[in-house]
Amino acid sequence: MLSSPSRSYGTTPRINGQRMMDSIHTTCEKWGQAHRYGQHHTETGMARLALDDNDAHVRRWFAEQAEALGCTVTVDQVGNQFAIRPGSVNTDASGKKVAPTFMGSHLDTQATGGRYDGILGVLAGLEALRTIDEQRIETEGPIGLVNWTNEEGARFPLITMASGVWAGVTPLETAWNTTETPAAAAIYGNSEKPATVKDELQRIGFLGDTPATHTAMPMAAHFELHIEQGPILETEQRKIGVVEGAQGYAWYEVTVRGRDAHAGTTPLHTRKDALLAAAQMIVAGNDVALSESASTPDQKGVVTTGVISALPGTPNTIPHTAQFTLDIRHPRPARLAAMVDACRSQFAAIAAKTTGIEVDWKCLSDNAPAIFHPDCVAAVQAAAEEEVETVTTREGATQQGWRRMWSGAGHDSCNVSKHYPASMIFAVTRDGLSHTPVEYCSPENCIVGAQVLLGAVLRFDAKRDL
Amino acid sequence: MLSSPSRSYGTTPRINGQRMMDSIHTTCEKWGQAHRYGQHHTETGMARLALDDNDAHVRRWFAEQAEALGCTVTVDQVGNQFAIRPGSVNTDASGKKVAPTFMGSHLDTQATGGRYDGILGVLAGLEALRTIDEQRIETEGPIGLVNWTNEEGARFPLITMASGVWAGVTPLETAWNTTETPAAAAIYGNSEKPATVKDELQRIGFLGDTPATHTAMPMAAHFELHIEQGPILETEQRKIGVVEGAQGYAWYEVTVRGRDAHAGTTPLHTRKDALLAAAQMIVAGNDVALSESASTPDQKGVVTTGVISALPGTPNTIPHTAQFTLDIRHPRPARLAAMVDACRSQFAAIAAKTTGIEVDWKCLSDNAPAIFHPDCVAAVQAAAEEEVETVTTREGATQQGWRRMWSGAGHDSCNVSKHYPASMIFAVTRDGLSHTPVEYCSPENCIVGAQVLLGAVLRFDAKRDL
Repeated sequence: MLSSPSRSYGTTPRINGQRMMDSIHTTCEKWGQAHRYGQHHTETGMARLALDDNDAHVRRWFAEQAEALGCTVTVDQVGNQFAIRPGSVNTDASGKKVAPTFMGSHLDTQATGGRYDGILGVLAGLEALRTIDEQRIETEGPIGLVNWTNEEGARFPLITMASGVWAGVTPLETAWNTTETPAAAAIYGNSEKPATVKDELQRIGFLGDTPATHTAMPMAAHFELHIEQGPILETEQRKIGVVEGAQGYAWYEVTVRGRDAHAGTTPLHTRKDALLAAAQMIVAGNDVALSESASTPDQKGVVTTGVISALPGTPNTIPHTAQFTLDIRHPRPARLAAMVDACRSQFAAIAAKTTGIEVDWKCLSDNAPAIFHPDCVAAVQAAAEEEVETVTTREGATQQGWRRMWSGAGHDSCNVSKHYPASMIFAVTRDGLSHTPVEYCSPENCIVGAQVLLGAVLRFDAKRDL
Repeated sequence: MLSSPSRSYGTTPRINGQRMMDSIHTTCEKWGQAHRYGQHHTETGMARLALDDNDAHVRRWFAEQAEALGCTVTVDQVGNQFAIRPGSVNTDASGKKVAPTFMGSHLDTQATGGRYDGILGVLAGLEALRTIDEQRIETEGPIGLVNWTNEEGARFPLITMASGVWAGVTPLETAWNTTETPAAAAIYGNSEKPATVKDELQRIGFLGDTPATHTAMPMAAHFELHIEQGPILETEQRKIGVVEGAQGYAWYEVTVRGRDAHAGTTPLHTRKDALLAAAQMIVAGNDVALSESASTPDQKGVVTTGVISALPGTPNTIPHTAQFTLDIRHPRPARLAAMVDACRSQFAAIAAKTTGIEVDWKCLSDNAPAIFHPDCVAAVQAAAEEEVETVTTREGATQQGWRRMWSGAGHDSCNVSKHYPASMIFAVTRDGLSHTPVEYCSPENCIVGAQVLLGAVLRFDAKRDL
């Protein structure tokens, strides 16, 4: 695809940064803003859970905006929205459609999420399309922008769900039948009959006809602008992360079974307390991460428990069952496996201390590290060099304004990279915080990120030999 | 009240044990049976949560049965049902009603409860009334039987709720406004608008007019048959516990606040993980109990966490908030206070290890030990001596068939004892287990317990000088 000799590339056109920031904030304020934390109108977080009414509204808005720029918008069987703007060459010699160079991310958020994770990537892509349209840029091939469904897995607990279906990682039926969490069901008044993904796709009118597969919707490449969600760029006072890949992660649901009994009358030595054992396991899981991170300081591993429950759930009954999630991550597959093994053996030892305590593991998701395509990484790096070759630090020194880095989080781009070239652009994240209402990326940092996104896409497109 | 010289007391009439066991099992099977664990028709647990439809059915049945025995049945403002059978003397010289000698317990259960906790006490009382009626026994004063509302606190998290209101421990409005737990709301399809106690009293027709106070419904005494819920009687091969009092207990809701952040991108040393801190606290609370129980082997303290939650509750977000309950018990008030203090200081130390982690305690219930009235304890002991003066052990030895003991659990009798004489009778509990479907008291042990209940009530009544 990139076999032709590189052609020269001029200057990337300037996006309209104000227009992009206005689009981010007006859509957040209309559809899903929540958790105010400051006085300024933009100082709220978001709760725009996948396929809820707010998500439906912003999806319709997205399609209207893209169509106004001359894009065709296709919706597939899991609700992914693909907007495509024609280029100079849109079919090959045999009449087959030319795969577009895509940008993309997601418009859904966590229940206590922010205004930037996912949203920045889609709306920066929209601003790139607006700039291309406004400046009448004729691209070599078509340019696309995708809004992936349910990246967060917050309402329907299947992370990067719809890019996973498109990539063939997750069966369509599995995604369709995924049921909202009890917490989400309660929010939407569905506790009696929690909704499935398919129910909600139908309800909001986004159950498309196009097969949800990468062969039905091929890509020349996929570029995603995203907030870093970590502290590295901010700490090093750089502006852009050129992302080479994403660390692997595994999700487990751990179930501890004991025996319920009265809290007041059951002596300590006769208890089979499932929740006490679960608490010991959570502490042990953190110890595994601490020990990994101490022994390999440059390749840190993390272990997190985000969800926990105990049954029957009354103050004066020792729980018979406790259930919790483990999110285990490491950039190196062998160390990730070692961390999982360490947790398994420590949890087994905790269970073995009390006769009658049993522990079961269920794998919810197992993702090998993603290694991004060198051509895409090169395009991102060239665009970063154009925008922020150097920056001046607070101390007055001059240094390179970007760095190569790995992603700590999983992204839709990881699924895309299984089939097509992909890379990501990271923007500075205040205090390294995301998945929280106070998640923040300054307008300056959003705009420089969007500029690099456009530069990377146009560079990649310019090198196509169609 | 018992100032007159003791009159002689004959033999306690025999109850109809088969009829009592049939009443227990047919009412359980009609209204709330759940969690089958064996082949026999009685081998299920119960889920008859306070004020649900099953509770409503059994309440109406209870009133019908009592009325059929010539009782008047009064319902107070928190749904307590008081059935009263007249005696020889029902009013004093000034025309004032004579306070009945009451039996009582509760008909509600835990969500994963059994067929004996509470239910045995009420239906043994009903069998005592049936025996009195059938054998045309004319008691000195009236004899009463009370079904206390929401003893378990399983649906509406306020333990011994309605005896607490009656005793003036809990304001009526507090009880009325108590809202069902999220887990219970989900069961009843009320997640969008969880029901309050008052809502449910109205819905099932048990919001009575009689003021819910001990002055409006006075008692000469209150006797409660209950399963021991502990292993002592079974281990010592005795049949009856003569209960002298109940250990104190305190319930707290502990809230740990940190900061939510992405599980994949947030280094361990920058986390403020509320759930990890909560897990460390639960382990520390158990350590406090272990240390207390090791240092004072005859006065064991216990600490239990039965309820836990974490927010926002997604696998890949470090929780910003974790909340859990603590149930702390000890027979001696000073040691109970010392255990609470030890937990407080250890939890504060855990929070202090991480800047930005905060811990708040809210007291849900604080119950001093209850010391039962010597006249009631004496009546129970005399009845126990009549029924099980000696038993033969498995080893063939002869030993006393009853023992004096303390209750590990709180009971409605503890609230009654704040105003009127009270005591309890404990029956053998298999493996010391209660608040679990496999909770079990054999027919033989239920019947001997009911026999002692009737003997204690008739003895106490016979000594009244009306």
